[in-house]
Amino acid sequence: TTTITWNAESAEKGGYAHFTLKEIYEQPKALRDTMTSRIVPGQPIKLDDIHITREMLLHYSRIYIVACGTAYNAGLIGKVAMENLSRIPVEVDVASEFRYRNPLIDNRTLVITISQSGETADTLAVLRDAQTKGARVIAITNVVGSSISREADDVFYTWAGPEIGVASTKAYLTMLVALYAIGIHFAELLDTKTAEELDAIKKELLTLPEKVAEILAHVEKVKDFAQRIHGEKDVFFLGRGLDYQIAVEASLKLKELSYIHSEAYAGGELKHGSIALIEDGISVIAPITQRDLTEKMQSNIKEVVSRGAKVMAVTYAENEDVAKYADEVIYIPSTLDLIAPILAVVPLQLLAYYVALYKGLDVDKPRNLAKSVTVE
Amino acid sequence: TTTITWNAESAEKGGYAHFTLKEIYEQPKALRDTMTSRIVPGQPIKLDDIHITREMLLHYSRIYIVACGTAYNAGLIGKVAMENLSRIPVEVDVASEFRYRNPLIDNRTLVITISQSGETADTLAVLRDAQTKGARVIAITNVVGSSISREADDVFYTWAGPEIGVASTKAYLTMLVALYAIGIHFAELLDTKTAEELDAIKKELLTLPEKVAEILAHVEKVKDFAQRIHGEKDVFFLGRGLDYQIAVEASLKLKELSYIHSEAYAGGELKHGSIALIEDGISVIAPITQRDLTEKMQSNIKEVVSRGAKVMAVTYAENEDVAKYADEVIYIPSTLDLIAPILAVVPLQLLAYYVALYKGLDVDKPRNLAKSVTVE
Repeated sequence: TTTITWNAESAEKGGYAHFTLKEIYEQPKALRDTMTSRIVPGQPIKLDDIHITREMLLHYSRIYIVACGTAYNAGLIGKVAMENLSRIPVEVDVASEFRYRNPLIDNRTLVITISQSGETADTLAVLRDAQTKGARVIAITNVVGSSISREADDVFYTWAGPEIGVASTKAYLTMLVALYAIGIHFAELLDTKTAEELDAIKKELLTLPEKVAEILAHVEKVKDFAQRIHGEKDVFFLGRGLDYQIAVEASLKLKELSYIHSEAYAGGELKHGSIALIEDGISVIAPITQRDLTEKMQSNIKEVVSRGAKVMAVTYAENEDVAKYADEVIYIPSTLDLIAPILAVVPLQLLAYYVALYKGLDVDKPRNLAKSVTVE
Repeated sequence: TTTITWNAESAEKGGYAHFTLKEIYEQPKALRDTMTSRIVPGQPIKLDDIHITREMLLHYSRIYIVACGTAYNAGLIGKVAMENLSRIPVEVDVASEFRYRNPLIDNRTLVITISQSGETADTLAVLRDAQTKGARVIAITNVVGSSISREADDVFYTWAGPEIGVASTKAYLTMLVALYAIGIHFAELLDTKTAEELDAIKKELLTLPEKVAEILAHVEKVKDFAQRIHGEKDVFFLGRGLDYQIAVEASLKLKELSYIHSEAYAGGELKHGSIALIEDGISVIAPITQRDLTEKMQSNIKEVVSRGAKVMAVTYAENEDVAKYADEVIYIPSTLDLIAPILAVVPLQLLAYYVALYKGLDVDKPRNLAKSVTVE
């Protein structure tokens, strides 16, 4: 039966060496499935299972996004995107911390829980506690019929398809799109952006599948960099603005898959302590997608390069300057700054995958980790 | 003149090998100076340079605490303490991130900036921007007459005395007390706690100088553990609740002084990724001061121990159980859970100091770092 299992699995992998790689490559389709029928330029966002009105939104004083692990990292991006779009204050917190700190929840609080499996124990506990205190809860989840989807007041299904690899990739990307879609929906209800502004964002979101596919078609440089760093014990990520939140997720991916101790820092925080760790030969990875922060970020890069760091940057096509400082530059297709992080994370998912591959690790089942954490 | 400078410096160090060590040992006095005349049991908190009324507080919808580095880490604790005491929603952010993300500031926002020097460039920029948008700004700073103290609407001087060591110790501890004092002041204005509850907290705060002195009088175990781990490249900190925020600061201290790549994780987040890094022989340091989270934290400790980690715990005197799982236990005097983090960080400051000492590093001036970051 071992052979049969292996064959079945091999078939399921559709020619890919690992589920994780297959799922990274499924992202264009997953994004399309998440957006189709919901996001149509010239029309309001259509969210069938979310029943929140303008009156309700005006009543809410704040939104909490609560999740664990990669879903929490999606929430970090969601906070910035949703505040930008809807101007409602949003706070993000880790479920296992939030539930024990007597948070300020009442009937003027809207809670958004995010969980791929819909069964994450700490997140489910937050959902129940929030409802008991009178809050309304939206669930973003990939699994129809999961506990979190059944108990939430409103649901956004990410439609990413089954995710087998323990390290989340396509579920994460579709969680991001879910948060943007809800943010646009709220902006439409609250009139915080013009129809033209929102239409421009919708159109750009709809180009993501094609742009992600373009990134996935050119992976040579990512493989080269993976080969170069796969023997290292410590790696740092640097970012500013939305690039910081992307750096946090890219760092987690590298940790989970390759067991390299990677850590993400906000560029402006470097001088406040972490730059003490930068020494000759250390690898620093920097997503640079935010145009108004590019100059400040490149000044951070110069600082680490002058202390001997080898830098890989992931940036937009027009940013030619960075090649003067970085050892390796991965260019990604241009889009709006607000959306660019969704693209920037893709080569960094691949980087984590290839580093693990070069190290000969069990990519689909990293040591000590389970796909969904259903105990506390 | 070199000799004279050295002699003068040596005299200033008052018999200590480094300013950093001297400043760690000055913490009982610094705490006393911060509290005296402000915190008196049976009387309302007295903050001469803060002129905020009950009416103003009722008008504020939220508080932002904004700072960099160690001051930001103080803000992490401040958020939990202030929300607990005053029930006003508090959000903490890094100044270099906050200023560029178009934050939701208006005349219903109260901003608290924290900066030891009062000259931190990004924090000063946030202060000015917030005032332009109509917000009121409280500054917590150690330097009288600094830019931030002059431009803020209200000021809390920490009275910690000059801090020469680049890695902040006594300034951090007094920033914590400042945040608690402001939180109690707000609770008094808003009647969110009874006079008895607040009196109990005031009394416990006033015991801190004596309890910190007690910790500083017994450092043998800390030195032993420093000796054991000083050759390591990577170390992890784990905490839940206020112990997580303390872990973040303890980790920064170790980074700054010893150049060990240390990172702090929330205990509940372990299973969501970072546990992949736990392997045989790795050192994990765990502050455990929160009684209601002790059991969950000890279950996290068992998880890492079963994967080969060597654990040092810092915990309250009554917690005998932890010795069954941890290799080394540092006991600290008992106090209220809300206040205990102020004690727990002290042995961890010493740990960072002694690790750097065993490594032969320049403790007072770690590589790449400046005492105050007055450029962006």
